[in-house]
Amino acid sequence: MKIDVLTLFPEMFTGVFESSILKQAQEKELVHLNACDFRQYTDNKHLKVDDYPYGGGAGMVLRPQPLFDAVADLQTKTTKKPRVVLLCPQGEPYQQSKAEELSKEDHIVLLCGHYEGYDERIREYLVTDEISIGDYVLTGGEMAAMVVVDSVVRLLPGVLGNDESAKSDSFSTGLLEHPHYTRPADFRGMRVPDVLLSGHHAHIEEWRAKESLKRTWQRRPDLLEKKHLTAEEKKWLLQWEKEE
Amino acid sequence: MKIDVLTLFPEMFTGVFESSILKQAQEKELVHLNACDFRQYTDNKHLKVDDYPYGGGAGMVLRPQPLFDAVADLQTKTTKKPRVVLLCPQGEPYQQSKAEELSKEDHIVLLCGHYEGYDERIREYLVTDEISIGDYVLTGGEMAAMVVVDSVVRLLPGVLGNDESAKSDSFSTGLLEHPHYTRPADFRGMRVPDVLLSGHHAHIEEWRAKESLKRTWQRRPDLLEKKHLTAEEKKWLLQWEKEE
Repeated sequence: MKIDVLTLFPEMFTGVFESSILKQAQEKELVHLNACDFRQYTDNKHLKVDDYPYGGGAGMVLRPQPLFDAVADLQTKTTKKPRVVLLCPQGEPYQQSKAEELSKEDHIVLLCGHYEGYDERIREYLVTDEISIGDYVLTGGEMAAMVVVDSVVRLLPGVLGNDESAKSDSFSTGLLEHPHYTRPADFRGMRVPDVLLSGHHAHIEEWRAKESLKRTWQRRPDLLEKKHLTAEEKKWLLQWEKEE
Repeated sequence: MKIDVLTLFPEMFTGVFESSILKQAQEKELVHLNACDFRQYTDNKHLKVDDYPYGGGAGMVLRPQPLFDAVADLQTKTTKKPRVVLLCPQGEPYQQSKAEELSKEDHIVLLCGHYEGYDERIREYLVTDEISIGDYVLTGGEMAAMVVVDSVVRLLPGVLGNDESAKSDSFSTGLLEHPHYTRPADFRGMRVPDVLLSGHHAHIEEWRAKESLKRTWQRRPDLLEKKHLTAEEKKWLLQWEKEE
Protein backbone atom coordinates (compact mmCIF):
# COMPACT_ATOMS: atom_id res chain seq x y z
CA MET A 1 0.00 0.00 0.00
CA LYS A 2 1.04 3.56 -0.72
CA ILE A 3 -0.26 6.53 1.26
CA ASP A 4 0.48 10.10 0.16
CA VAL A 5 -0.42 12.95 2.46
CA LEU A 6 -0.82 16.36 0.83
CA THR A 7 -0.16 19.05 3.44
CA LEU A 8 1.39 22.47 3.95
CA PHE A 9 3.22 21.09 7.03
CA PRO A 10 5.06 17.92 5.96
CA GLU A 11 7.47 18.30 8.91
CA MET A 12 4.58 17.53 11.30
CA PHE A 13 4.62 13.94 10.03
CA THR A 14 8.32 13.18 10.51
CA GLY A 15 8.23 11.99 14.12
CA VAL A 16 4.97 10.09 13.61
CA PHE A 17 6.05 8.25 10.46
CA GLU A 18 9.44 7.38 12.00
CA SER A 19 8.25 5.83 15.29
CA SER A 20 6.77 2.60 16.51
CA ILE A 21 4.42 0.56 14.29
CA LEU A 22 4.47 2.99 11.34
CA LYS A 23 8.27 2.88 11.24
CA GLN A 24 8.30 -0.92 11.43
CA ALA A 25 5.63 -1.27 8.73
CA GLN A 26 7.75 0.83 6.36
CA GLU A 27 10.92 -1.09 7.21
CA LYS A 28 9.08 -4.33 6.39
CA GLU A 29 7.98 -2.65 3.12
CA LEU A 30 4.32 -3.26 3.91
CA VAL A 31 3.47 0.39 3.33
CA HIS A 32 5.06 3.42 1.69
CA LEU A 33 4.28 6.68 3.52
CA ASN A 34 4.95 10.07 1.98
CA ALA A 35 4.15 13.54 3.34
CA CYS A 36 4.20 15.95 0.40
CA ASP A 37 4.05 19.76 0.51
CA PHE A 38 1.42 20.72 -2.07
CA ARG A 39 2.65 24.29 -2.14
CA GLN A 40 5.22 23.08 -4.68
CA TYR A 41 2.36 22.54 -7.16
CA THR A 42 0.96 26.09 -7.09
CA ASP A 43 1.04 28.11 -10.31
CA ASN A 44 1.03 31.34 -8.29
CA LYS A 45 4.31 33.25 -8.59
CA HIS A 46 4.20 34.19 -4.88
CA LEU A 47 3.63 30.46 -4.04
CA LYS A 48 0.22 31.27 -2.57
CA VAL A 49 -2.22 28.37 -2.25
CA ASP A 50 -5.23 30.29 -0.95
CA ASP A 51 -7.31 33.30 -1.90
CA TYR A 52 -10.27 35.39 -0.66
CA PRO A 53 -13.72 33.77 -0.62
CA TYR A 54 -16.26 34.70 -3.30
CA GLY A 55 -19.21 36.38 -1.64
CA GLY A 56 -17.03 37.82 1.16
CA GLY A 57 -16.41 36.69 4.74
CA ALA A 58 -13.53 36.01 7.10
CA GLY A 59 -10.82 33.42 6.44
CA MET A 60 -9.04 32.33 3.30
CA VAL A 61 -10.03 29.48 1.00
CA LEU A 62 -7.69 26.88 -0.56
CA ARG A 63 -7.58 27.31 -4.35
CA PRO A 64 -8.43 24.26 -6.44
CA GLN A 65 -5.40 24.34 -8.76
CA PRO A 66 -2.56 23.20 -6.41
CA LEU A 67 -4.49 20.18 -5.09
CA PHE A 68 -5.87 19.13 -8.51
CA ASP A 69 -2.36 19.22 -9.97
CA ALA A 70 -0.77 17.47 -6.98
CA VAL A 71 -3.25 14.59 -7.15
CA ALA A 72 -2.82 14.33 -10.93
CA ASP A 73 0.94 14.10 -10.49
CA LEU A 74 0.77 11.44 -7.74
CA GLN A 75 -1.69 9.49 -9.90
CA THR A 76 0.72 9.21 -12.84
CA LYS A 77 2.99 7.10 -10.63
CA THR A 78 0.39 4.35 -10.07
CA THR A 79 -1.73 2.27 -12.43
CA LYS A 80 -5.00 2.34 -10.49
CA LYS A 81 -6.92 5.48 -9.50
CA PRO A 82 -6.25 6.27 -5.84
CA ARG A 83 -8.84 6.91 -3.15
CA VAL A 84 -8.64 10.66 -2.54
CA VAL A 85 -9.69 11.40 1.02
CA LEU A 86 -10.45 14.88 2.31
CA LEU A 87 -10.13 15.36 6.08
CA CYS A 88 -12.81 17.86 7.14
CA PRO A 89 -15.44 18.46 9.84
CA GLN A 90 -18.22 18.03 7.26
CA GLY A 91 -17.06 14.50 6.39
CA GLU A 92 -18.50 11.11 7.24
CA PRO A 93 -17.80 10.31 10.92
CA TYR A 94 -14.78 7.98 10.91
CA GLN A 95 -15.33 4.48 12.25
CA GLN A 96 -13.43 1.22 12.43
CA SER A 97 -15.40 -0.17 9.47
CA LYS A 98 -14.06 2.67 7.28
CA ALA A 99 -10.48 1.89 8.39
CA GLU A 100 -11.07 -1.73 7.37
CA GLU A 101 -12.42 -0.63 3.99
CA LEU A 102 -9.47 1.70 3.32
CA SER A 103 -6.96 -0.99 4.37
CA LYS A 104 -7.91 -2.94 1.21
CA GLU A 105 -6.80 -0.14 -1.16
CA ASP A 106 -3.49 0.01 -3.06
CA HIS A 107 -3.13 3.78 -3.02
CA ILE A 108 -4.65 6.46 -0.79
CA VAL A 109 -4.12 10.21 -1.05
CA LEU A 110 -5.05 12.23 2.05
CA LEU A 111 -5.74 15.96 1.67
CA CYS A 112 -5.12 18.18 4.71
CA GLY A 113 -6.33 21.74 4.79
CA HIS A 114 -5.17 24.15 7.43
CA TYR A 115 -7.14 26.99 9.12
CA GLU A 116 -9.14 27.79 5.99
CA GLY A 117 -11.91 26.15 4.08
CA TYR A 118 -11.52 24.40 0.73
CA ASP A 119 -12.84 25.51 -2.60
CA GLU A 120 -15.97 23.40 -3.04
CA ARG A 121 -14.80 22.11 -6.43
CA ILE A 122 -12.08 20.11 -4.64
CA ARG A 123 -14.84 18.37 -2.71
CA GLU A 124 -17.11 17.89 -5.72
CA TYR A 125 -14.71 16.83 -8.46
CA LEU A 126 -11.44 15.64 -6.88
CA VAL A 127 -12.15 13.70 -3.70
CA THR A 128 -13.72 10.25 -3.43
CA ASP A 129 -14.24 10.27 0.36
CA GLU A 130 -14.65 12.88 3.08
CA ILE A 131 -13.77 11.91 6.63
CA SER A 132 -14.26 13.64 9.97
CA ILE A 133 -12.47 11.99 12.90
CA GLY A 134 -14.83 13.55 15.47
CA ASP A 135 -17.04 16.46 16.49
CA TYR A 136 -14.30 18.83 17.58
CA VAL A 137 -12.39 21.60 15.83
CA LEU A 138 -8.72 21.19 14.86
CA THR A 139 -6.43 23.80 13.30
CA GLY A 140 -5.85 21.52 10.33
CA GLY A 141 -6.37 18.12 8.78
CA GLU A 142 -2.86 16.89 9.69
CA MET A 143 -3.70 15.13 12.94
CA ALA A 144 -6.80 13.64 11.35
CA ALA A 145 -4.59 12.29 8.55
CA MET A 146 -2.24 10.73 11.13
CA VAL A 147 -5.21 9.03 12.80
CA VAL A 148 -6.37 7.60 9.46
CA VAL A 149 -2.84 6.43 8.54
CA ASP A 150 -2.30 4.73 11.90
CA SER A 151 -5.70 3.04 12.05
CA VAL A 152 -5.36 1.75 8.46
CA VAL A 153 -1.72 0.63 8.54
CA ARG A 154 -2.13 -1.43 11.72
CA LEU A 155 -4.75 -3.51 9.85
CA LEU A 156 -2.40 -4.48 6.99
CA PRO A 157 -1.40 -8.16 7.14
CA GLY A 158 2.00 -8.61 8.81
CA VAL A 159 2.12 -5.19 10.49
CA LEU A 160 1.11 -6.30 13.98
CA GLY A 161 2.54 -9.45 15.53
CA ASN A 162 0.12 -12.35 16.07
CA ASP A 163 0.07 -11.63 19.76
CA GLU A 164 -1.10 -8.06 19.32
CA SER A 165 -3.54 -8.64 16.48
CA ALA A 166 -5.12 -11.50 18.40
CA LYS A 167 -6.13 -9.01 21.07
CA SER A 168 -9.82 -8.24 21.15
CA ASP A 169 -10.08 -4.65 20.03
CA SER A 170 -12.70 -2.49 21.67
CA PHE A 171 -14.53 -1.70 18.46
CA SER A 172 -14.39 -5.09 16.75
CA THR A 173 -16.18 -7.00 19.53
CA GLY A 174 -18.79 -4.25 19.84
CA LEU A 175 -18.10 -3.93 23.58
CA LEU A 176 -15.59 -1.90 25.59
CA GLU A 177 -12.70 -3.93 27.00
CA HIS A 178 -12.77 -5.38 30.51
CA PRO A 179 -10.28 -4.02 33.10
CA HIS A 180 -6.68 -5.27 33.03
CA TYR A 181 -4.35 -5.74 36.00
CA THR A 182 -0.67 -6.61 36.31
CA ARG A 183 1.85 -6.90 39.13
CA PRO A 184 2.04 -6.04 41.96
CA ALA A 185 -1.15 -7.56 43.42
CA ASP A 186 -1.07 -4.84 46.07
CA PHE A 187 0.20 -1.49 44.81
CA ARG A 188 0.35 1.04 47.66
CA GLY A 189 -2.82 -0.43 49.17
CA MET A 190 -4.70 -0.66 45.86
CA ARG A 191 -5.50 -4.32 45.27
CA VAL A 192 -6.15 -6.54 42.25
CA PRO A 193 -9.60 -8.28 42.38
CA ASP A 194 -9.32 -11.71 44.03
CA VAL A 195 -10.87 -13.58 41.11
CA LEU A 196 -7.90 -12.70 38.87
CA LEU A 197 -5.50 -14.23 41.40
CA SER A 198 -7.64 -17.37 41.86
CA GLY A 199 -6.30 -19.32 38.90
CA HIS A 200 -9.90 -20.43 38.18
CA HIS A 201 -10.08 -19.98 34.43
CA ALA A 202 -13.88 -20.20 34.01
CA HIS A 203 -14.49 -17.65 36.79
CA ILE A 204 -11.95 -15.28 35.25
CA GLU A 205 -13.64 -15.56 31.85
CA GLU A 206 -17.04 -14.86 33.34
CA TRP A 207 -15.73 -11.90 35.35
CA ARG A 208 -14.16 -10.43 32.22
CA ALA A 209 -17.27 -10.90 30.07
CA LYS A 210 -19.42 -9.32 32.78
CA GLU A 211 -17.07 -6.35 33.34
CA SER A 212 -16.85 -5.73 29.61
CA LEU A 213 -20.63 -5.66 29.30
CA LYS A 214 -21.04 -3.57 32.45
CA ARG A 215 -18.54 -0.98 31.34
CA THR A 216 -20.24 -0.68 27.96
CA TRP A 217 -23.65 -0.37 29.64
CA GLN A 218 -22.36 2.34 31.99
CA ARG A 219 -20.30 4.35 29.52
CA ARG A 220 -21.53 3.66 26.00
CA PRO A 221 -25.10 2.35 26.03
CA ASP A 222 -25.29 3.43 22.36
CA LEU A 223 -22.96 0.53 21.46
CA LEU A 224 -25.35 -2.00 23.04
CA GLU A 225 -28.19 -0.99 20.71
CA LYS A 226 -26.32 -2.44 17.72
CA LYS A 227 -25.24 -5.60 19.55
CA HIS A 228 -26.89 -9.03 19.64
CA LEU A 229 -27.01 -10.05 23.31
CA THR A 230 -27.19 -13.58 24.73
CA ALA A 231 -29.87 -14.59 27.25
CA GLU A 232 -27.27 -14.47 30.03
CA GLU A 233 -26.11 -10.98 29.05
CA LYS A 234 -29.72 -9.77 29.05
CA LYS A 235 -30.16 -11.23 32.54
CA TRP A 236 -27.08 -9.34 33.81
CA LEU A 237 -28.34 -6.08 32.31
CA LEU A 238 -31.74 -6.47 33.97
CA GLN A 239 -30.04 -7.11 37.29
CA TRP A 240 -27.84 -3.98 37.04
CA GLU A 241 -30.83 -1.89 36.02
CA LYS A 242 -32.70 -3.11 39.10
CA GLU A 243 -29.71 -2.36 41.37
CA GLU A 244 -29.49 1.25 40.20
CA MET B 1 -1.38 26.79 30.56
CA LYS B 2 0.99 23.84 30.89
CA ILE B 3 0.38 20.53 29.11
CA ASP B 4 2.56 17.51 29.89
CA VAL B 5 2.24 14.42 27.72
CA LEU B 6 3.44 11.16 29.26
CA THR B 7 4.40 8.77 26.46
CA LEU B 8 6.92 6.10 25.48
CA PHE B 9 7.41 7.90 22.14
CA PRO B 10 8.20 11.57 22.89
CA GLU B 11 9.87 11.93 19.48
CA MET B 12 6.45 11.54 17.82
CA PHE B 13 5.51 14.97 19.19
CA THR B 14 8.49 16.96 17.95
CA GLY B 15 7.17 17.88 14.49
CA VAL B 16 3.68 18.54 15.78
CA PHE B 17 4.69 20.76 18.69
CA GLU B 18 7.13 22.71 16.48
CA SER B 19 4.77 23.60 13.60
CA SER B 20 2.02 26.06 12.87
CA ILE B 21 -0.34 27.23 15.63
CA LEU B 22 1.20 25.10 18.40
CA LYS B 23 4.63 26.52 17.68
CA GLN B 24 3.29 30.08 17.62
CA ALA B 25 1.33 29.58 20.85
CA GLN B 26 4.53 28.47 22.62
CA GLU B 27 6.55 31.35 21.16
CA LYS B 28 3.91 33.78 22.49
CA GLU B 29 4.23 31.94 25.86
CA LEU B 30 0.50 31.18 25.91
CA VAL B 31 1.16 27.50 26.52
CA HIS B 32 4.03 25.29 27.65
CA LEU B 33 4.07 21.90 25.90
CA ASN B 34 6.21 19.02 27.12
CA ALA B 35 6.41 15.44 25.84
CA CYS B 36 7.96 13.32 28.58
CA ASP B 37 9.14 9.70 28.36
CA PHE B 38 7.65 7.99 31.43
CA ARG B 39 10.06 5.08 31.06
CA GLN B 40 12.52 7.22 33.03
CA TYR B 41 10.27 6.81 36.10
CA THR B 42 10.23 3.01 36.19
CA ASP B 43 11.74 1.27 39.23
CA ASN B 44 12.42 -1.84 37.12
CA LYS B 45 16.13 -2.45 36.61
CA HIS B 46 15.55 -3.50 32.98
CA LEU B 47 13.53 -0.28 32.45
CA LYS B 48 10.40 -2.28 31.73
CA VAL B 49 7.08 -0.43 32.07
CA ASP B 50 4.73 -3.35 31.37
CA ASP B 51 4.11 -6.88 32.64
CA TYR B 52 1.87 -9.92 31.98
CA PRO B 53 -1.85 -9.61 32.78
CA TYR B 54 -3.25 -11.26 35.91
CA GLY B 55 -5.68 -13.95 34.86
CA GLY B 56 -3.82 -14.63 31.61
CA GLY B 57 -4.45 -13.50 28.04
CA ALA B 58 -2.58 -11.93 25.12
CA GLY B 59 -0.85 -8.56 25.27
CA MET B 60 1.07 -6.78 27.99
CA VAL B 61 -0.34 -4.37 30.58
CA LEU B 62 1.20 -1.06 31.69
CA ARG B 63 2.31 -1.26 35.33
CA PRO B 64 0.91 1.38 37.68
CA GLN B 65 4.22 2.46 39.28
CA PRO B 66 5.86 4.43 36.43
CA LEU B 67 2.75 6.51 35.69
CA PHE B 68 1.88 7.15 39.36
CA ASP B 69 5.44 8.36 40.01
CA ALA B 70 5.61 10.44 36.82
CA VAL B 71 2.37 12.27 37.64
CA ALA B 72 3.50 12.81 41.25
CA ASP B 73 6.75 14.34 40.01
CA LEU B 74 5.04 16.66 37.48
CA GLN B 75 2.60 17.69 40.20
CA THR B 76 5.35 18.92 42.53
CA LYS B 77 6.18 21.60 39.96
CA THR B 78 2.73 23.24 40.10
CA THR B 79 0.60 24.55 42.95
CA LYS B 80 -2.78 23.25 41.77
CA LYS B 81 -3.65 19.59 41.13
CA PRO B 82 -3.58 18.95 37.38
CA ARG B 83 -6.31 17.34 35.30
CA VAL B 84 -4.94 13.87 34.51
CA VAL B 85 -6.43 12.67 31.23
CA LEU B 86 -6.17 9.08 30.00
CA LEU B 87 -6.56 8.61 26.23
CA CYS B 88 -8.34 5.29 25.69
CA PRO B 89 -11.10 3.69 23.62
CA GLN B 90 -13.23 3.22 26.76
CA GLY B 91 -13.23 6.96 27.48
CA GLU B 92 -15.91 9.60 27.13
CA PRO B 93 -16.37 10.44 23.42
CA TYR B 94 -14.46 13.68 22.86
CA GLN B 95 -16.48 16.71 21.82
CA GLN B 96 -15.93 20.41 21.35
CA SER B 97 -17.57 21.14 24.73
CA LYS B 98 -14.85 19.05 26.45
CA ALA B 99 -12.12 20.99 24.61
CA GLU B 100 -13.72 24.21 25.89
CA GLU B 101 -13.80 22.84 29.44
CA LEU B 102 -10.14 21.74 29.35
CA SER B 103 -9.04 25.08 27.88
CA LYS B 104 -9.88 26.71 31.25
CA GLU B 105 -7.37 24.57 33.20
CA ASP B 106 -3.88 25.67 34.31
CA HIS B 107 -2.24 22.27 34.02
CA ILE B 108 -3.18 19.14 32.08
CA VAL B 109 -1.32 15.81 32.07
CA LEU B 110 -2.13 13.49 29.17
CA LEU B 111 -1.37 9.76 29.55
CA CYS B 112 -0.69 7.79 26.35
CA GLY B 113 -0.56 4.01 26.38
CA HIS B 114 0.79 2.06 23.46
CA TYR B 115 -0.36 -1.35 22.13
CA GLU B 116 -1.22 -2.67 25.59
CA GLY B 117 -3.90 -2.05 28.13
CA TYR B 118 -3.44 -0.13 31.37
CA ASP B 119 -3.53 -1.49 34.86
CA GLU B 120 -7.01 -0.60 36.07
CA ARG B 121 -5.66 1.14 39.19
CA ILE B 122 -4.29 3.90 36.93
CA ARG B 123 -7.84 4.49 35.73
CA GLU B 124 -9.39 4.26 39.17
CA TYR B 125 -6.96 6.21 41.34
CA LEU B 126 -4.77 8.39 39.15
CA VAL B 127 -6.80 9.84 36.29
CA THR B 128 -9.51 12.52 36.50
CA ASP B 129 -10.81 12.14 32.92
CA GLU B 130 -10.87 9.45 30.26
CA ILE B 131 -11.21 10.53 26.65
CA SER B 132 -11.78 8.60 23.43
CA ILE B 133 -11.37 10.66 20.25
CA GLY B 134 -13.54 8.27 18.20
CA ASP B 135 -14.75 4.73 17.57
CA TYR B 136 -11.66 3.42 15.79
CA VAL B 137 -8.56 1.59 16.99
CA LEU B 138 -5.16 3.30 17.14
CA THR B 139 -1.81 1.73 18.04
CA GLY B 140 -1.42 4.17 20.90
CA GLY B 141 -2.73 7.23 22.66
CA GLU B 142 -0.18 9.56 21.06
CA MET B 143 -2.29 10.81 18.15
CA ALA B 144 -5.29 11.16 20.44
CA ALA B 145 -3.13 13.32 22.73
CA MET B 146 -2.11 15.50 19.76
CA VAL B 147 -5.79 15.98 18.86
CA VAL B 148 -6.60 17.05 22.42
CA VAL B 149 -3.61 19.42 22.60
CA ASP B 150 -4.46 21.07 19.26
CA SER B 151 -8.19 21.44 19.94
CA VAL B 152 -7.54 22.91 23.42
CA VAL B 153 -4.63 25.23 22.58
CA ARG B 154 -6.45 26.89 19.65
CA LEU B 155 -9.14 28.00 22.15
CA LEU B 156 -6.70 29.84 24.45
CA PRO B 157 -7.12 33.63 24.25
CA GLY B 158 -4.56 35.16 21.88
CA VAL B 159 -3.62 31.95 20.07
CA LEU B 160 -5.72 32.49 16.95
CA GLY B 161 -5.89 35.89 15.25
CA ASN B 162 -9.23 37.70 15.39
CA ASP B 163 -9.84 36.88 11.79
CA GLU B 164 -9.54 33.14 12.31
CA SER B 165 -11.34 32.95 15.63
CA ALA B 166 -14.21 34.97 14.20
CA LYS B 167 -14.85 32.17 11.72
CA SER B 168 -17.94 30.17 12.43
CA ASP B 169 -16.66 26.76 13.45
CA SER B 170 -18.66 23.76 12.35
CA PHE B 171 -19.32 22.51 15.85
CA SER B 172 -20.02 25.79 17.60
CA THR B 173 -22.93 26.84 15.35
CA GLY B 174 -24.41 23.35 15.51
CA LEU B 175 -24.50 23.14 11.69
CA LEU B 176 -21.93 22.05 9.12
CA GLU B 177 -20.32 24.88 7.18
CA HIS B 178 -21.67 26.08 3.84
CA PRO B 179 -19.50 25.57 0.70
CA HIS B 180 -16.64 27.99 0.04
CA TYR B 181 -15.35 29.14 -3.34
CA THR B 182 -12.38 31.22 -4.43
CA ARG B 183 -10.80 32.25 -7.72
CA PRO B 184 -10.95 31.40 -10.56
CA ALA B 185 -14.70 31.67 -11.22
CA ASP B 186 -14.26 29.03 -13.92
CA PHE B 187 -11.64 26.38 -13.10
CA ARG B 188 -11.26 23.95 -16.00
CA GLY B 189 -14.97 24.12 -16.74
CA MET B 190 -16.04 23.86 -13.07
CA ARG B 191 -17.91 27.01 -12.18
CA VAL B 192 -18.64 29.00 -9.02
CA PRO B 193 -22.41 29.41 -8.32
CA ASP B 194 -23.74 32.64 -9.88
CA VAL B 195 -25.16 33.96 -6.62
CA LEU B 196 -21.66 34.28 -5.12
CA LEU B 197 -20.57 36.45 -8.05
CA SER B 198 -23.72 38.61 -7.92
CA GLY B 199 -22.54 41.01 -5.24
CA HIS B 200 -26.05 40.84 -3.72
CA HIS B 201 -25.24 40.49 -0.05
CA ALA B 202 -28.68 39.38 1.20
CA HIS B 203 -28.95 36.69 -1.47
CA ILE B 204 -25.46 35.42 -0.62
CA GLU B 205 -26.34 35.22 3.08
CA GLU B 206 -29.54 33.32 2.34
CA TRP B 207 -27.73 30.91 0.00
CA ARG B 208 -25.09 30.21 2.65
CA ALA B 209 -27.61 29.66 5.44
CA LYS B 210 -29.60 27.32 3.20
CA GLU B 211 -26.54 25.35 2.04
CA SER B 212 -25.29 25.00 5.60
CA LEU B 213 -28.65 23.62 6.72
CA LYS B 214 -28.99 21.39 3.64
CA ARG B 215 -25.54 19.89 4.10
CA THR B 216 -26.25 19.16 7.77
CA TRP B 217 -29.61 17.60 6.86
CA GLN B 218 -27.99 15.42 4.19
CA ARG B 219 -24.87 14.37 6.08
CA ARG B 220 -25.44 14.73 9.80
CA PRO B 221 -29.18 14.71 10.59
CA ASP B 222 -28.17 13.79 14.17
CA LEU B 223 -26.88 17.35 14.64
CA LEU B 224 -30.29 18.82 13.72
CA GLU B 225 -32.00 16.99 16.57
CA LYS B 226 -30.16 19.15 19.12
CA LYS B 227 -30.70 22.39 17.20
CA HIS B 228 -33.44 25.02 17.60
CA LEU B 229 -34.72 25.75 14.08
CA THR B 230 -36.44 28.91 12.86
CA ALA B 231 -39.77 28.77 11.02
CA GLU B 232 -37.99 29.46 7.74
CA GLU B 233 -35.46 26.66 8.33
CA LYS B 234 -38.32 24.26 9.06
CA LYS B 235 -39.99 25.31 5.80
CA TRP B 236 -36.79 24.58 3.83
CA LEU B 237 -36.45 21.16 5.44
CA LEU B 238 -40.06 20.25 4.58
CA GLN B 239 -39.46 21.31 0.99
CA TRP B 240 -36.28 19.16 0.64
CA GLU B 241 -38.05 16.20 2.20
CA LYS B 242 -40.86 16.56 -0.36
CA GLU B 243 -38.35 16.80 -3.24
CA GLU B 244 -36.62 13.55 -2.27
